[in-house]
Amino acid sequence: MSVLGLGRMGSALATALVGEGYDVTVWNRTPKTLPGARSVATPEEAFETDVVVTCLSTYEVQQPLLSKNIKTLVNLTSGTPEQARATAEWARQHGVEYVDGVIMAVPQQIGTEQARILYSGQSTHHVLDAFGEPVHLGEDARLAALYDLALLGIMWSVFGGYLQAQALVQTAGVTPQQFTPLATDWLATVGTFLPEMGEQTAHRNYETEVSALDINVEGLRLLTRANEEQGLDVTVPQALHGLFQRAQSNGHGAHSIASVIEEIRK
Amino acid sequence: MSVLGLGRMGSALATALVGEGYDVTVWNRTPKTLPGARSVATPEEAFETDVVVTCLSTYEVQQPLLSKNIKTLVNLTSGTPEQARATAEWARQHGVEYVDGVIMAVPQQIGTEQARILYSGQSTHHVLDAFGEPVHLGEDARLAALYDLALLGIMWSVFGGYLQAQALVQTAGVTPQQFTPLATDWLATVGTFLPEMGEQTAHRNYETEVSALDINVEGLRLLTRANEEQGLDVTVPQALHGLFQRAQSNGHGAHSIASVIEEIRK
Ligand SMILES: NC(=O)c1ccc[n+]([C@@H]2O[C@H](COP(=O)([O-])OP(=O)(O)OC[C@H]3O[C@@H](n4cnc5c(N)ncnc54)[C@H](OP(=O)(O)O)[C@@H]3O)[C@@H](O)[C@H]2O)c1
Ligand SMILES: NC(=O)c1ccc[n+]([C@@H]2O[C@H](COP(=O)([O-])OP(=O)(O)OC[C@H]3O[C@@H](n4cnc5c(N)ncnc54)[C@H](OP(=O)(O)O)[C@@H]3O)[C@@H](O)[C@H]2O)c1
Repeated sequence: MSVLGLGRMGSALATALVGEGYDVTVWNRTPKTLPGARSVATPEEAFETDVVVTCLSTYEVQQPLLSKNIKTLVNLTSGTPEQARATAEWARQHGVEYVDGVIMAVPQQIGTEQARILYSGQSTHHVLDAFGEPVHLGEDARLAALYDLALLGIMWSVFGGYLQAQALVQTAGVTPQQFTPLATDWLATVGTFLPEMGEQTAHRNYETEVSALDINVEGLRLLTRANEEQGLDVTVPQALHGLFQRAQSNGHGAHSIASVIEEIRK
Repeated sequence: MSVLGLGRMGSALATALVGEGYDVTVWNRTPKTLPGARSVATPEEAFETDVVVTCLSTYEVQQPLLSKNIKTLVNLTSGTPEQARATAEWARQHGVEYVDGVIMAVPQQIGTEQARILYSGQSTHHVLDAFGEPVHLGEDARLAALYDLALLGIMWSVFGGYLQAQALVQTAGVTPQQFTPLATDWLATVGTFLPEMGEQTAHRNYETEVSALDINVEGLRLLTRANEEQGLDVTVPQALHGLFQRAQSNGHGAHSIASVIEEIRK
């Protein structure tokens, strides 16, 4: 069993394997050691083991390191669906057993059940169990990368929204200690609206007893203005306002916020 | 007790008051009735009651309706901190008792403890208890509106992020029924990162063992590209990518995502 890449995540993966009692070999571009594991100087030495787990910054960085001498490749590097598909195809052509996964967790969660490992394609490997809770998404090799990007997009939206909110309340002296508990409770409330929103996007029926897009476009205008008045960057609120406003202009003013997907889809 | 505005939210508020056994008077621009309440034709008639609750689209719409004949005004219309401050000042000058609140809930949650009613300023009123859980934020009349916009900003970010994610996975035939359970679980995981992120913004110490901005900027680039490849609108991912990238260019590449607040603050 070997791990290529001992960055923040790769180190956590290798540590989890050591913890599970596996015989672990590690390689990193910048020479590095990991307690309980054997370091090797070249990727080729790592390819002698039965399974190679990769966790590098990008596919661009990973691609030149791959070799047909790998027996089973468990690819945990993040990328696009197309990159995942191409790597699956490369593996098939070279007779390399291939498992494509993505990690929906931070390194500190690896080895706990909070760490979901989404994977797709035709094969799996019990090594995933050492990292967290594996979830199979389907046969199509692109699916894990697709879900990964989609879910990370939600994460970046939340982080961007939270940091903007925190910057705004700080202009009135409100500290993160005061604001964050309300923000996390509110985030949980907001999460409860997603299933209904999803249903609406599926049926493209945007009638609402809850909240009309009109009121929300107005709210986004006020939010952008309030941020501007405080001298804050408005890139993100302005982008959301623009997107929601276009949906409104296209006849969705009296519809629910879910109707904004019509604007994203075209 | 009277309610001005019988839109989605105003109707829910009036219904909650009726349910609590109050003697309720309602007024709406477009004549409307509400079971158990007395409808009046002019706002002036409503001002004869001890308390007037307002819930109109905007302050612009509300302002011309207000009168010094109001005894206690419970203002639940959403607006900017500055609009709330000006209304508090108007009330003070005209001897109107004033309570400024915002509703962090949808109409369907009114009357339940899931509905937080944030309020600020020097006075309160037990009528807020009929709507949900009142939370006092401080003496400064602007605070409720400030928290409201900040928290709604998080909500719009989540909705924008979720709809973008849903549009993306749908390009591979993934339905909202398949994707949303993973999205809501993931949202809960993401919420657990906010307290640490808040701490970092307070101390302006962005060292990280978790995830460097560099990796996330690269991820946002891939997300934007994947959306583009599917012919989807990229307004929101592009805005996030631009903002995160500017923080990276300003020396935060090896720092945590929390460092993006430095870019928002200037
Ligand atoms: N951190 C997280 O929270 C998290 C969560 C889920 C998924 N992921 C994914 O996991 C992967 C790794 O992330 P990370 O946080 O561990 O990143 P990181 O801490 O920045 O580590 C990057 C790794 O890639 C290696 N690398 C970079 N350029 C290279 C090159 N040209 N040739 C060979 N190796 C190279 C680095 O080696 P050097 O040490 O020599 O620079 C290091 O081992 C990414 O795809 C990321 O999206 C991370
Ligand atoms: N819905 C929610 O989920 C929610 C949540 C929290 C806070 N809020 C806040 O609650 C307030 C009301 O929202 P809503 O969802 O109830 O909106 P809504 O359903 O669109 O109702 C808007 C209300 O404002 C009235 N109005 C609009 N223009 C007017 C004018 N020129 N003169 C007099 N009345 C006018 C409407 O009267 P007509 O019936 O005559 O048009 C209606 O009573 C907003 O500030 C909103 O931000 C809403």
